Amino acid sequence: MQQTKIVLIICDGMADRPDREHNNKTPLEVASKPNMDKIARDGICGIMNPIGYGIPPGSNTAHLALLGYNPYEYYTGRGPFEALGAGLNLGKDDIAFRCNFATAEKKNNKIFITDRRAGRGEFGMKELGKLLNFRTDDADVVFKASSGHRGVLVLRGKNLSEKISDSDPHSEGEIKEVRPLDDSDAAKRTAQILNKFTERCYEILNRSEIQSERINKGMLPANIILARGAGKTGEIPKFNEKYGLNGACIAGVTLVKGVGRSVGLNIIDVSSATGHADSNIEGKIDACIKELKENRHDFILINIKGTDEISHDGDFEGKVEMIERIDKVLGKLLLSVSENNLNTTIALTADHTTSVTVKEHSGDTVPIAILGDVRTDEICKFSERECAKGGLGVIKGTDLLNILMDLSRRGKKFGA
Amino acid sequence: MQQTKIVLIICDGMADRPDREHNNKTPLEVASKPNMDKIARDGICGIMNPIGYGIPPGSNTAHLALLGYNPYEYYTGRGPFEALGAGLNLGKDDIAFRCNFATAEKKNNKIFITDRRAGRGEFGMKELGKLLNFRTDDADVVFKASSGHRGVLVLRGKNLSEKISDSDPHSEGEIKEVRPLDDSDAAKRTAQILNKFTERCYEILNRSEIQSERINKGMLPANIILARGAGKTGEIPKFNEKYGLNGACIAGVTLVKGVGRSVGLNIIDVSSATGHADSNIEGKIDACIKELKENRHDFILINIKGTDEISHDGDFEGKVEMIERIDKVLGKLLLSVSENNLNTTIALTADHTTSVTVKEHSGDTVPIAILGDVRTDEICKFSERECAKGGLGVIKGTDLLNILMDLSRRGKKFGA
Repeated sequence: MQQTKIVLIICDGMADRPDREHNNKTPLEVASKPNMDKIARDGICGIMNPIGYGIPPGSNTAHLALLGYNPYEYYTGRGPFEALGAGLNLGKDDIAFRCNFATAEKKNNKIFITDRRAGRGEFGMKELGKLLNFRTDDADVVFKASSGHRGVLVLRGKNLSEKISDSDPHSEGEIKEVRPLDDSDAAKRTAQILNKFTERCYEILNRSEIQSERINKGMLPANIILARGAGKTGEIPKFNEKYGLNGACIAGVTLVKGVGRSVGLNIIDVSSATGHADSNIEGKIDACIKELKENRHDFILINIKGTDEISHDGDFEGKVEMIERIDKVLGKLLLSVSENNLNTTIALTADHTTSVTVKEHSGDTVPIAILGDVRTDEICKFSERECAKGGLGVIKGTDLLNILMDLSRRGKKFGA
Repeated sequence: MQQTKIVLIICDGMADRPDREHNNKTPLEVASKPNMDKIARDGICGIMNPIGYGIPPGSNTAHLALLGYNPYEYYTGRGPFEALGAGLNLGKDDIAFRCNFATAEKKNNKIFITDRRAGRGEFGMKELGKLLNFRTDDADVVFKASSGHRGVLVLRGKNLSEKISDSDPHSEGEIKEVRPLDDSDAAKRTAQILNKFTERCYEILNRSEIQSERINKGMLPANIILARGAGKTGEIPKFNEKYGLNGACIAGVTLVKGVGRSVGLNIIDVSSATGHADSNIEGKIDACIKELKENRHDFILINIKGTDEISHDGDFEGKVEMIERIDKVLGKLLLSVSENNLNTTIALTADHTTSVTVKEHSGDTVPIAILGDVRTDEICKFSERECAKGGLGVIKGTDLLNILMDLSRRGKKFGA
């Protein structure tokens, strides 16, 4: 039998805990999702610890693990993955940061943050971001707005260090002065450069005409940049070399695109795929079907972020609806694979649990179902508690790619 | 939602294997234990390898693991943990031993052990132990009787080594001459010191008036000290620093108190909590409830030792009764937590299997149930074989604290 292609569908933060206010059920248990259930029924099910029992994963560390990379070895902080995801190239000495556009006010010469996401309004941010590219005596500053209120900052120059604190106060209030986290001159210098950058942002962004347009539209000014997650890029083996798979990544958010780019997956951009709940998820599935039909990739990772965003907002019903929306487009994929004989192994899972009651990532296991040449089990519903009884047992995130390689007839025998 | 407190109840050696002479059931399967079953029914269940598949754990190594410390890294022998548990402070060069008071007879100038526990009669042992504190030219000798027939010995001085054999013959018969386990001078010296100590014990203890009182009471003389488990204390990160939890330990036996003290848990003493089957287990639960109500600790470990002792004696019915006694006091805890809204995550487990047929610790998994913000499963009975079907799957001992941190809303996200 010939090798199959592999599609790995990761619904971000889709797993949950039972909610007392909803009959002790999880959104997956409440949603009507015939296509996810079909994958469970016709496939093999299990539960997975993306990182390890009880460890709340980030989306980036979990995606690294699900691609077969031990995140404790390969994760070098949020900044570099975001910068790669935004399409910037990183030199090995560059310091990268994940940023927010935020709303600030100056009082008594101090900057206070009044909205950490500038009201989430995206208008004008691309243009505003372009104003933040300049050279200083100390370093080159590269800034790029990515999706939503998000952006990335890269400091490029000699004698810089990632050992510095965030300027992001992580809550409304006075902006944090960036401090060096070790005694090196490089850390002290880099902290100063970032502090100066913050001051300069406030000046540049406030006097921009686009800012006035935002305000005229009744939007909050996006007049400061909050930076966090300083990091350098690390050495990471390419996916293609590790597995011999020609891989692609379809994702809305830079966070996940960056993980994909860091291991050399081809990023397939889909218009209006934003990572928000209203993202063009049908477009993502269409792009995946196109790749399968045109035979361009052996491996396609699809990330759908909306389930996570809604969970952070604590919106149970919204999460149920989002799951049902995802289910509908999954139906299209299943149909196309079957009608066109697109010999494909399909895995459906989440990268972590984001409980609508906790409103944060938690360390619970996630359900997983794999459709293909598998030992089907008795599980007929794709949910946290049903999959826990499945034939796959409990796997670790870093086990997944090996399993998919094996099921797609690519396993490499160890021994004789 | 706010963080919860954590109570970890460890019933020592409670897990068992099915006994052919009891309908192929385990004591947990035979006992009537509505409260343990309630924790299973309303919680999430699983099984746990305290150390690893097939590895029979000691109580101390298992407790280290269940507190999140890899025992292969942090366990430095029984002696130091016993000494800490008995309330002694250890310098980094001190050699500590776990000891028994035993009954000996001298024949042809050789010492023969006729009862390894001096009939378990505790009378006078505290006073006898005090006689065994003295200085020699080679080292200071510190001895302290702990609970039951148990005691701890510390040799303090220069050029001592823990690389020596036990004086305890581990069965009735001639006492073992202590031998060095490596070629170092320190080991040879320390072996000699311990051999001299044993001889001297026999003289001192036999001529004590308290010894005569024991004999007049019809008790066996406690006229020799058997030492085993030589070890030095190691460097171990404090529990509070590792988890940010202010932790307490409620235990009868020094072995477990010592593990608690080694990681900086506050030891809460409960009168008549002896670690035997007739221990004041209600007092332990009352102490736990008091801690929860008075908000003094975030984490409370309760060890109940009786189940282990009875298992070593091979007493199936006695173990069933002990489990039923524990269940009753657990009911008090559950009621108090619920009536007083003591927002608490409760985990119930064993540190290892002590089978009444094997009469020794074995490497089987142990059942575990966790009550709190969990994915409840279909398990309604707390037992080895029911919990194996639970939603938690198979965890390792060192996973447990991470899971409890996560469920109590203290999980720290790795990544973004």
